[in-house]
Amino acid sequence: MKNLPINLQEKLSKFQDQWSPKVIAEMNDYQFKLVKVQGDFVWHKHEDTDEVFIVIEGHLIIEFREGEVILQEGEMFVIPQNVEHKPYAEAECKMLLVEPKGVINTGQEKTEQTAENDVWI
Amino acid sequence: MKNLPINLQEKLSKFQDQWSPKVIAEMNDYQFKLVKVQGDFVWHKHEDTDEVFIVIEGHLIIEFREGEVILQEGEMFVIPQNVEHKPYAEAECKMLLVEPKGVINTGQEKTEQTAENDVWI
Repeated sequence: MKNLPINLQEKLSKFQDQWSPKVIAEMNDYQFKLVKVQGDFVWHKHEDTDEVFIVIEGHLIIEFREGEVILQEGEMFVIPQNVEHKPYAEAECKMLLVEPKGVINTGQEKTEQTAENDVWI
Repeated sequence: MKNLPINLQEKLSKFQDQWSPKVIAEMNDYQFKLVKVQGDFVWHKHEDTDEVFIVIEGHLIIEFREGEVILQEGEMFVIPQNVEHKPYAEAECKMLLVEPKGVINTGQEKTEQTAENDVWI
């Protein structure tokens, strides 16, 4: 066991690419990932799992087919399994994601925004 | 689905008791819990699961039988399954915990610090 804390800001400083989640920790079969997002993402859903977004810096709009939620810094949201959603951030937003290992960022859609999985920083 | 963000500071303002985790969200069979801690906790372990501590305010020392880890604000740590640990905070520390639903805060130990489970705020 490594007795080293995981510092979120230090990890965020290690990458600049957007919409490309980086794994910073695993708990059982779940992963904690940092991601920087800006602009529009693709409509998608995750058929097998909920996922959690926690905003560290900036703010994020998550659009649903019915309504939207706006997340400010220090706010989190659980996107339910199988619910279509589209994240959007006008300015860059930095987030912590929590979801099972193996979840594809674009869900059932394969687009140019589909990111490689299991990229650790 | 409720389109309301979960604001960590607003939730933290709703309770004052220490060592008594409050559930703020569920993702699949996992829970996100806020807790305020100060002073010494009991040595314990969780035989069936890892658990995650994320420090929101203050700092926390997690003692292990071999070594310790010190967590500052904005830092997280994954305590591995079955590893004995004892959290300690000199001043009050506010944390977000992530662990499977049903985990007992004192693990295999039943003490006066054993908290009721599934208390939502």
